[in-house]
Amino acid sequence: MAIEQINKMREHRSKPANLSPEEEKLDPIYRPRSDCTVFLGYTSNLVSSGVRETIRFLAQHRMIDCIVTSAGGIEEDFIKCLAPTFLGDFFLKGRDLRPKGLNRTGNLLVPNDNYCLFEDWIMPILDQMLAEQKEQGTLWTPSKMIARLGKEIDNPESIYYWCYKNEIPVFSPAITDGSIGDMLFMHAYKNPGLILDIVHDIKMMDSIAAHSKHSGMIIMGGGLVKHHIHNANQMKGGADYGVFINTAQEFDGSDGGARPDEAVSWGKIKETARPVKIFADATLVFPLLVSQTFAKDIKPLTNGTQD
Amino acid sequence: MAIEQINKMREHRSKPANLSPEEEKLDPIYRPRSDCTVFLGYTSNLVSSGVRETIRFLAQHRMIDCIVTSAGGIEEDFIKCLAPTFLGDFFLKGRDLRPKGLNRTGNLLVPNDNYCLFEDWIMPILDQMLAEQKEQGTLWTPSKMIARLGKEIDNPESIYYWCYKNEIPVFSPAITDGSIGDMLFMHAYKNPGLILDIVHDIKMMDSIAAHSKHSGMIIMGGGLVKHHIHNANQMKGGADYGVFINTAQEFDGSDGGARPDEAVSWGKIKETARPVKIFADATLVFPLLVSQTFAKDIKPLTNGTQD
Amino acid sequence: MAIEQINKMREHRSKPANLSPEEEKLDPIYRPRSDCTVFLGYTSNLVSSGVRETIRFLAQHRMIDCIVTSAGGIEEDFIKCLAPTFLGDFFLKGRDLRPKGLNRTGNLLVPNDNYCLFEDWIMPILDQMLAEQKEQGTLWTPSKMIARLGKEIDNPESIYYWCYKNEIPVFSPAITDGSIGDMLFMHAYKNPGLILDIVHDIKMMDSIAAHSKHSGMIIMGGGLVKHHIHNANQMKGGADYGVFINTAQEFDGSDGGARPDEAVSWGKIKETARPVKIFADATLVFPLLVSQTFAKDIKPLTNGTQD
Amino acid sequence: MAIEQINKMREHRSKPANLSPEEEKLDPIYRPRSDCTVFLGYTSNLVSSGVRETIRFLAQHRMIDCIVTSAGGIEEDFIKCLAPTFLGDFFLKGRDLRPKGLNRTGNLLVPNDNYCLFEDWIMPILDQMLAEQKEQGTLWTPSKMIARLGKEIDNPESIYYWCYKNEIPVFSPAITDGSIGDMLFMHAYKNPGLILDIVHDIKMMDSIAAHSKHSGMIIMGGGLVKHHIHNANQMKGGADYGVFINTAQEFDGSDGGARPDEAVSWGKIKETARPVKIFADATLVFPLLVSQTFAKDIKPLTNGTQD
Repeated sequence: MAIEQINKMREHRSKPANLSPEEEKLDPIYRPRSDCTVFLGYTSNLVSSGVRETIRFLAQHRMIDCIVTSAGGIEEDFIKCLAPTFLGDFFLKGRDLRPKGLNRTGNLLVPNDNYCLFEDWIMPILDQMLAEQKEQGTLWTPSKMIARLGKEIDNPESIYYWCYKNEIPVFSPAITDGSIGDMLFMHAYKNPGLILDIVHDIKMMDSIAAHSKHSGMIIMGGGLVKHHIHNANQMKGGADYGVFINTAQEFDGSDGGARPDEAVSWGKIKETARPVKIFADATLVFPLLVSQTFAKDIKPLTNGTQD
Repeated sequence: MAIEQINKMREHRSKPANLSPEEEKLDPIYRPRSDCTVFLGYTSNLVSSGVRETIRFLAQHRMIDCIVTSAGGIEEDFIKCLAPTFLGDFFLKGRDLRPKGLNRTGNLLVPNDNYCLFEDWIMPILDQMLAEQKEQGTLWTPSKMIARLGKEIDNPESIYYWCYKNEIPVFSPAITDGSIGDMLFMHAYKNPGLILDIVHDIKMMDSIAAHSKHSGMIIMGGGLVKHHIHNANQMKGGADYGVFINTAQEFDGSDGGARPDEAVSWGKIKETARPVKIFADATLVFPLLVSQTFAKDIKPLTNGTQD
Repeated sequence: MAIEQINKMREHRSKPANLSPEEEKLDPIYRPRSDCTVFLGYTSNLVSSGVRETIRFLAQHRMIDCIVTSAGGIEEDFIKCLAPTFLGDFFLKGRDLRPKGLNRTGNLLVPNDNYCLFEDWIMPILDQMLAEQKEQGTLWTPSKMIARLGKEIDNPESIYYWCYKNEIPVFSPAITDGSIGDMLFMHAYKNPGLILDIVHDIKMMDSIAAHSKHSGMIIMGGGLVKHHIHNANQMKGGADYGVFINTAQEFDGSDGGARPDEAVSWGKIKETARPVKIFADATLVFPLLVSQTFAKDIKPLTNGTQD
Repeated sequence: MAIEQINKMREHRSKPANLSPEEEKLDPIYRPRSDCTVFLGYTSNLVSSGVRETIRFLAQHRMIDCIVTSAGGIEEDFIKCLAPTFLGDFFLKGRDLRPKGLNRTGNLLVPNDNYCLFEDWIMPILDQMLAEQKEQGTLWTPSKMIARLGKEIDNPESIYYWCYKNEIPVFSPAITDGSIGDMLFMHAYKNPGLILDIVHDIKMMDSIAAHSKHSGMIIMGGGLVKHHIHNANQMKGGADYGVFINTAQEFDGSDGGARPDEAVSWGKIKETARPVKIFADATLVFPLLVSQTFAKDIKPLTNGTQD
């Protein structure tokens, strides 16, 4: 049923948007590109894990229209371009890892050095962003910053390199909640004045949803990334299609754990929609789902250079 | 054991900070107020639920030093000052609720009208904030906005009224992720130009943690609110005390589900700390915990007017 | 709401059964003792934990009518009369514990020696049971064996001592699934021939349910103990009251995780009933529930010798 | 890693047992058939679901040596030979289903009629079993009964038909906990006297484990089926290989939720073993696992008649 939902998104997405004359005049970023706008959301653990490559595949082939992720979902992608993450174990002890400079994320290990490389890479970019703010009056937002970082990383292994290339907006309103925040904290003392505005991003996110013809939501995990996409889809009277993969439960009243039907009451999902929630670890399910849907559009090259 | 952790926070918090001459010169907002800085985090469902009153109690009696919550954790508090939330049921159907204008949050129902009242209340404040930005050069941040809203609501039932009165900073970097975001979206068309900067807030949040003598974390739920407090506590070499209440599991590699020991590897919790994770619904556990710890400091008035 | 369910059970249970002349002729074990038959079910971990004392309280004061538990739920009660269980930690390593002869059950530790003491105690009883089978033609069943063990332990700390004294039948169809099974395995080589029949027990269990006037189910945990009580209540057209405490989820289609409404479709719970499922650890919730319901009937003795 | 565990079981299982002269004299049922005895356990929901066909495949091709399941895991297999189970939905209401005679099991529906067909089929078999008990002195046990039912069903769609044909013992100590129990209850009034002894079954189960050379455990779900296989493997000093698929969590101290390391402390799993727990719905994972392991041994017939 999840495959069916995704295939309906793809079917509508393969059709033109049939814009009205008024819609033709919209800012291109708000103007629907097809008959279905696909929103992809995921929490940072999925970028730490190998699901990053599946997400990058979708961005590279421009199979999605808008991304929402958390701070870690941004920075871990760039950091992986600078140095690798290692496979550890859920039960390695903190007191053993700390002296070795190894940070545990579930069963993965990220060395402190990776964050040093990240600092070396991002600090000059923050300086440059501040310079542009002062000189050209640029009002930076998280989405503009992510696009800039995607341009600067210039690495086809990066999700956000492809988002930059393919003009896929990426929203992360709490981008300060992680290593990027640490850098902005230090930068605020070293070279103060950089502003990251979240009002313009919510205007953009909600406008994209409001102008979409049909819309589909594919969301892994809960919390901010799940709610943010749902909330925006209220602006168009509810999403048409939805696939949600997470292990959260409804009994604690969390949005993460809510069944899709809760979103129907809010007008975040249409009453006529047939959304699917999969109670499973996305690292297990999402690659299977993509292999049976989006990936069918791509023929592997015979010389094996592609994906 | 959770009670023990909280009592240690309270014990240190009852002692003066013993500031060095250099620390005396710090901006008062960054200067530690006692020997232990207590960070309280909670997701929005807890404000939708009756835990709001317990949180308000802690803010009213200035028993905590810093709050981190999600967008819903802010707005639901104000909306409850304007109109009530109702008890429904987890299994009421979206298609029945939608035509009645009832939005379901777990087993609670919030009428659409509540959000209309919220719009009527907040829109003039947003106008005023924009005017101050233009006229006085105010750089608004989520925490400044929350303090302003707390002042404006002027209602002792509100958590953020007491945070304003008691100068307890409240951070919500993704404050756009909910009804406040909807309002900012509409405001950006009606009366454009308001900026909400998240860089200054991360500077403030991290500085408070960095300057704290000891620190304690009490966190209900996962996602942003859990990670944000943990990340800030890295700036002081790790929190000394911690109590975490949530139902998330570690196997999916989420930060929400991670055991406290994962945070030790990152230096977010000290190696010597004895943090406690309670796998339970916070609505059940948190009021019990507060009753056996913080609430013991308060004598009920004989004429029964307090709390 | 759970308190309400339990209070309704207690209210009906305080009334006489008003037996018909035909019912008066029933075997006393099948004849309802009051207007409500209360079934209590729990998995073995709750007897390993301190909930054992709360269960014993209910048996001692004859507040329940029938118990269903798993093999561990039987033997851990007797073993605790012989030697204590210790508090350990969920993360003690098996390879460290094994050489020390410490068996981990969650965060509890049971020394090997306890099972040796159990063997020394139970083996002569098994011999005696076999002798009675041979000499008097006794057909042993799990429930008869449990009553006999309750008599033999002769210790007011034991749940099953009180069940024996108060004629509360205890069913455990898979009583071989644990240390008692190990003993029966060894006994089957040393002194072969003992038979434990489960047909007579299902006849008894189902008959008790079938003849009950009203019935209530209080069940902690899932699996066999939950299903067995439900299945029996089908014989009377469904239970009238129900309180279920467990952390299992429905998405995997398990009976343990099923919401009470699934049981309505089977006629295990009446359509008119208002059963309550609490998604929580029973060690947290059950003592609170009992304190607010059953325990209110008992006045503590002034010299403090009771409970 | 789970694939690796299963492949090690298969590798050892492909080798002869190399019996000592003393072992050659063992009752064939206790005598190891190869260098690795594979125990398969599963809860009843998996037989209600489509995993039944995967289990039947393993029994048909004699790829496992011993099965433990719950009462529903036995009866639902036979009932599916008599009439189909239907796909419904988790949220169909009990009060709507009850008048239609539809029993819900998760998202599946089993009509009352299926149980009537089951009664018609099994009652004469129970009569015959009782006759053999009286006439030939047969001591029936759950495992003997299951083998007899497997013979009587005479249907290659049945798991237990193949277990009977391939002499794979199937243990279900609480076989009375379901529809078979209902039948035994009624039979105990109509035609009393049938005895089902569980002592002989535990002797057999534990002896099979005790005599095994190496052993592997593949267990889906928790409760009795998980514990029973673990407990038996204590008799040989712990299993060598293990794959566990369930969604239970350890924090409530349940055996179902315990990590494999808990079993190491008990000697149920060897210290040197590398068991794997998969936190997932088995309906998703088990068919994938079997397809990549056991199923590789079988070549599909070109005329497509097999499986």
